[in-house]
Amino acid sequence: MRSSRRSGVDPFIVMDVLEHARRAEAAGRRIIHMEIGQPATPAPSGARAAVTEAMAGDAMGYTVALGLPALRQRIARLYGDWYNVDLDPGRVIVTSGSSAAFLLAFTALFDTGDRVGIGAPGYPSYRQILRALDLRPVMLETAAENRLQPVPGDLPADLAGLMIASPANPSGTMLDRAAMAALIGACAAQGTAFISDEIYHGIEYDKKAVTALEISDEVYVINSFSKYFSMTGWRVGWMVVPPDHVRIIERLAQNMFICAPHVSQIAALAAMDCEPELQANMAVYRENRRLMLEGLPEAGFTRIAPPDGGFYVYADVSHLTQDSRALAAEILEQAGVAVAPGLDFDPSRGAGTLRFSYATATGDIREGLARLKTFMQARFG
Amino acid sequence: MRSSRRSGVDPFIVMDVLEHARRAEAAGRRIIHMEIGQPATPAPSGARAAVTEAMAGDAMGYTVALGLPALRQRIARLYGDWYNVDLDPGRVIVTSGSSAAFLLAFTALFDTGDRVGIGAPGYPSYRQILRALDLRPVMLETAAENRLQPVPGDLPADLAGLMIASPANPSGTMLDRAAMAALIGACAAQGTAFISDEIYHGIEYDKKAVTALEISDEVYVINSFSKYFSMTGWRVGWMVVPPDHVRIIERLAQNMFICAPHVSQIAALAAMDCEPELQANMAVYRENRRLMLEGLPEAGFTRIAPPDGGFYVYADVSHLTQDSRALAAEILEQAGVAVAPGLDFDPSRGAGTLRFSYATATGDIREGLARLKTFMQARFG
Repeated sequence: MRSSRRSGVDPFIVMDVLEHARRAEAAGRRIIHMEIGQPATPAPSGARAAVTEAMAGDAMGYTVALGLPALRQRIARLYGDWYNVDLDPGRVIVTSGSSAAFLLAFTALFDTGDRVGIGAPGYPSYRQILRALDLRPVMLETAAENRLQPVPGDLPADLAGLMIASPANPSGTMLDRAAMAALIGACAAQGTAFISDEIYHGIEYDKKAVTALEISDEVYVINSFSKYFSMTGWRVGWMVVPPDHVRIIERLAQNMFICAPHVSQIAALAAMDCEPELQANMAVYRENRRLMLEGLPEAGFTRIAPPDGGFYVYADVSHLTQDSRALAAEILEQAGVAVAPGLDFDPSRGAGTLRFSYATATGDIREGLARLKTFMQARFG
Repeated sequence: MRSSRRSGVDPFIVMDVLEHARRAEAAGRRIIHMEIGQPATPAPSGARAAVTEAMAGDAMGYTVALGLPALRQRIARLYGDWYNVDLDPGRVIVTSGSSAAFLLAFTALFDTGDRVGIGAPGYPSYRQILRALDLRPVMLETAAENRLQPVPGDLPADLAGLMIASPANPSGTMLDRAAMAALIGACAAQGTAFISDEIYHGIEYDKKAVTALEISDEVYVINSFSKYFSMTGWRVGWMVVPPDHVRIIERLAQNMFICAPHVSQIAALAAMDCEPELQANMAVYRENRRLMLEGLPEAGFTRIAPPDGGFYVYADVSHLTQDSRALAAEILEQAGVAVAPGLDFDPSRGAGTLRFSYATATGDIREGLARLKTFMQARFG
């Protein structure tokens, strides 16, 4: 049967790692998971209680396309609490995870062949979704001295859009207010749509992340309940768009998604009032991060930078290998630790990088670091 | 801010009806809902119990992109039970509702500018999603003598794809085995991908619907838990694709959706073992259909055909009006019954048609029919 050219997107390399890890586990080995970008914790107990309660209640039919009004209002309030931004709930759109928000944003903003800039290294699905929509991802090779974030000088003049992430995946670096404002200004000056992926907001260590909405209303902001709110599998997120784009997104969402999962919207609304439990998760990430920043260099991964947010450490291993895929396979095989080769995030330079996730339980982090140390001493001396 | 040409999809006209109905209800009126295409019933109690149980269980993280293996197996078994088709579970892909399945199918099969045939009248989102993906919907005006379904003679030779629905929305007509085989054969002969929307399967009255998989493996089949399984707001459905397309869809789904909602997959698996409750819903639809087929002609909607499946009656009112939108507004205003003007389903001939849904409670159907009769006598004598 026929298939389209644009369906030929790259596979996720980390999925191969996951598959190998599963096979090893099926064979009885205990594997430490540092490859997966999701919390080990469930949705907050308040969220789960709300779901249980809802099961006895209404029929849980479709919600309106833009999402439950109470949830849109509660999300708008978050912008007051977190950033002191007064946000009109009418601009908040509840989506089926940030995945749906990317699809909606790219469809609303770009036409076939449009060029959209994304920082490398970055989340691999940006470029794959762009390709699937017949748009052209333009990889902007970021510099270490810019903390692996794009700067205005990196932007070609013909970009229809720029997608940034702060805190970034895999690097964990954040754009401060000045850096964010400079990018937004540069985009505005050349008619480039600015999209800010803020899905790691809330998981920050030294200072609060800056939202693009602090700087301008003429931006798309994408966020999710997956990370800080610990709800990956629920597939619920949100976007904030300029006032005159709400109706565009509404029409697209009615047709492309109908609505985000009703049950997940109920869980999300309750999750937003579970601050103590979410802060307990944060205490775990904080301790895990401390262990990683101490243990990875001890193991021999010396070229790392402390992440500002999120739960990853991105390591330059180019002095050890130019085949991060093979090294990751070796680490899994020898040490029983699953890690992500950098090629998913940066198709060129990723051959010399690895991403370590510390979203898992602290006991696993300790064990993983000990295993990595033993492996590295045996392997690189 | 810039917006794309392809984001300019048509609004759903029925959403305006819904909004007017909500306003009337807010003002204290009781409105009978015959506009909405969703069951009034919740997910089966077994499904809701499974969700409650899961809330105390695992972390509900991402599932693999193709869906929970147990659910894929259970869906495959349904094809044995319902159609006597032996289906490899490896070809079943769990999706975030049929909406996600359409996005995945169209992306996997078609490139920018490709022409895709859809029957008119038909589900409006087909053409809107195609447009949003920069594909070209080709409306095939179906004939009353073909029971508003396309036939091989309707197909232009240059179609990249054909999308059919059986039972259809809004007409409720089904393709029998010969009609389905003729269309599949015609498509195969000219290299046109065949996509079968089977989301109303299970809701049938006189005979079982035919799945395209009874005829060929070289087709895409799309289905959902929304209708027969009464789970609209859960956003979970599935597709069955040819063996060599599984990997294509997997790569796209990993990037575009990550996975269908985990909680909804758990609910769906349990729903499949709730046959007595689902059959009780069917008894309601059966009684509602009987009342509609009796009451609509009595009210003056004489040009209707008994639906083979689904829960809609599509009425030709072209002898009464050439502005179905105005007539629907009048019915809502005067009779307090919300109905869907045909323009969503057929942009040209829909000016002379209305769709009545009977998915609601039987008491409401009786009341709605009585109101329609009073209105029609006053209006058309």
